[in-house]
Amino acid sequence: MAREQVFNFSAGPSVLPLPVLERAKAELADYHGSGMSVMEMSHRSPLFQEIFDGAKAKLKAALSVPDTHEILFLQGGATLQFASIPMNLLEGGTADYAVTGNFSGKAAAEAQKYGTVHIAADTGATGHDRIPSQAELQLSRDAKYFYYCSNNTIYGTEWQYVPETAAPLVCDMSSDILSRPVDVSRYGLIYAGAQKNMAPAGLTVVILDRALLGRELPFTPEVMRYQTLVKHDSMLNTPPCWCIYMLGLMLDWVAEQGGVRGMEERKRERAAKLYDYLDDSGLFIAHARPGSRSDMNVTFRTGSAELDAAFVRGAAARGLLNVKGHRITGGMRASLYNAMPMEGVDALIAYMKEFEVQHHV
Amino acid sequence: MAREQVFNFSAGPSVLPLPVLERAKAELADYHGSGMSVMEMSHRSPLFQEIFDGAKAKLKAALSVPDTHEILFLQGGATLQFASIPMNLLEGGTADYAVTGNFSGKAAAEAQKYGTVHIAADTGATGHDRIPSQAELQLSRDAKYFYYCSNNTIYGTEWQYVPETAAPLVCDMSSDILSRPVDVSRYGLIYAGAQKNMAPAGLTVVILDRALLGRELPFTPEVMRYQTLVKHDSMLNTPPCWCIYMLGLMLDWVAEQGGVRGMEERKRERAAKLYDYLDDSGLFIAHARPGSRSDMNVTFRTGSAELDAAFVRGAAARGLLNVKGHRITGGMRASLYNAMPMEGVDALIAYMKEFEVQHHV
Repeated sequence: MAREQVFNFSAGPSVLPLPVLERAKAELADYHGSGMSVMEMSHRSPLFQEIFDGAKAKLKAALSVPDTHEILFLQGGATLQFASIPMNLLEGGTADYAVTGNFSGKAAAEAQKYGTVHIAADTGATGHDRIPSQAELQLSRDAKYFYYCSNNTIYGTEWQYVPETAAPLVCDMSSDILSRPVDVSRYGLIYAGAQKNMAPAGLTVVILDRALLGRELPFTPEVMRYQTLVKHDSMLNTPPCWCIYMLGLMLDWVAEQGGVRGMEERKRERAAKLYDYLDDSGLFIAHARPGSRSDMNVTFRTGSAELDAAFVRGAAARGLLNVKGHRITGGMRASLYNAMPMEGVDALIAYMKEFEVQHHV
Repeated sequence: MAREQVFNFSAGPSVLPLPVLERAKAELADYHGSGMSVMEMSHRSPLFQEIFDGAKAKLKAALSVPDTHEILFLQGGATLQFASIPMNLLEGGTADYAVTGNFSGKAAAEAQKYGTVHIAADTGATGHDRIPSQAELQLSRDAKYFYYCSNNTIYGTEWQYVPETAAPLVCDMSSDILSRPVDVSRYGLIYAGAQKNMAPAGLTVVILDRALLGRELPFTPEVMRYQTLVKHDSMLNTPPCWCIYMLGLMLDWVAEQGGVRGMEERKRERAAKLYDYLDDSGLFIAHARPGSRSDMNVTFRTGSAELDAAFVRGAAARGLLNVKGHRITGGMRASLYNAMPMEGVDALIAYMKEFEVQHHV
């Protein structure tokens, strides 16, 4: 029985490609004739090691990760990295944080437990509706690193440039990794929770320059020490095996779709269509300013909380799921991750037009 | 096509019940007609909340968790708890640790970063082949907690009693949770990595007495503070949704099999059969001493590394997978978790008998 057609605009965990789900389903109870599910495999078995190495190799290829950098498959989400990063890299010194949304704000607050945080930029005054320019960044001398979040899921803004800093760049790419090419060599550390563009929730990918290893504060938990994790190739303890397997399937799908360049082309097309409509609309208002807009999360509202709520209800009734904005911002949010087909955007715009006709005076 | 019949004796991740895998497979691409996989659901959606609440309620029922205790669904494995526990409960004071194996030893070493560790017992002198008696425990005055690991996966020993201590009991039940009834009210904190008896790797369950909340060291990461996690009902950030869903399915299966009492009956039967054979064998030697033996992990050897290797190879050829012992101990290990059918034990014993006839002089 075919499943009901819905379009899932959730900000994460979020839509996965149907072919990926179908493959996972086919292999679920018996992986490649092994008589076992991937979920039953010892993480030390050759069969799982092959899955693990495969996912790592595919990610390395997809993002052209240079040999100077290590790839780690961890647990704990971005929130654990908020602490891991300063514990491993701050050395009790100063780090620059660009606060462009909720998660970079939380990361900055957490880092204060482990050293000095210098706010290099804060776009809170205008509701985080834009990304600061390079000229606006107030960089401190001798910062241990510069921290930013490349895409702000809640506010719908995305950095369109890579900051120029003397300090190593540390970037939270949770919500736009694999959506465009990245010059990994420019970063000291990139990390991402997997649950948007990579895999189901429960996996955190860290890509870091080996030159940054070995600076942990003494009380850093063993399983948060990058050096230890690199030494054990992410298997100091049992990794989130199923999510790593799913990442491998996702990366196969990304490769089939033309890799990150293919993803970039498609995400631009999807987002441009929706922003174009929003800018023409007499009812809906886009939150993020042009030049700062995210291709992954499009935030908008009507200006009336009642109308917003009616819109969200009506959308759900049509199978356009999870378009309600984050509780911090209100309004609406359409997340257009890699796995969102253009039909989803078309269906959303069609409904918006209909809604606008009904409610616009 | 039926999958090949194998018996997976892995110490973890490990065998899951086939009916659980079949159910997960059936629902994988379309959960209850929602048009979505569980892996695609927002963790804030009512549909996922239902799955989450259901798993929690089922676990509470299965272990008769009293209302004084909270249940948390976390990430990071036991290894992260090695740090979380002293960060949250040690307050820079002293804690008693019973070292009866590899993981309790690691937990004790980690805790030293956060306060004073007093070794209340250490069975290392005899290769951790036994559990200390109550009389042997050297309890320190004013300990913040007493820590032990109820089942030692690597050595194949299991505590047959609950220690009597003035300090709150903290127990790592990673490898025997849900295999027998537990009087949760006697514990300050119980935790378990899910990948043996509960769910796929990537979920850690913590059950703790609310009376112990609010004692964190100042540098404790936000996502490791039990108080914060309780406040957010494990959703400070995105939880490992798929594993929580799988835990729910596992708990349904446990309930169908007579709950933890049913599990206990069956595990005793399985282990007794194998230990009886081992004690009669002229070739194989059980590692753990009677009275300390684990029903979950049965460790044994022939006394010859060559024969051990031949045994492991021959077992694999017969579909008896992962019977190789841990690299620390060598020899063999048969893990008989909840999902291991008696047929697996019978097949293993049949092969052991055959091997013994061939190799015993």
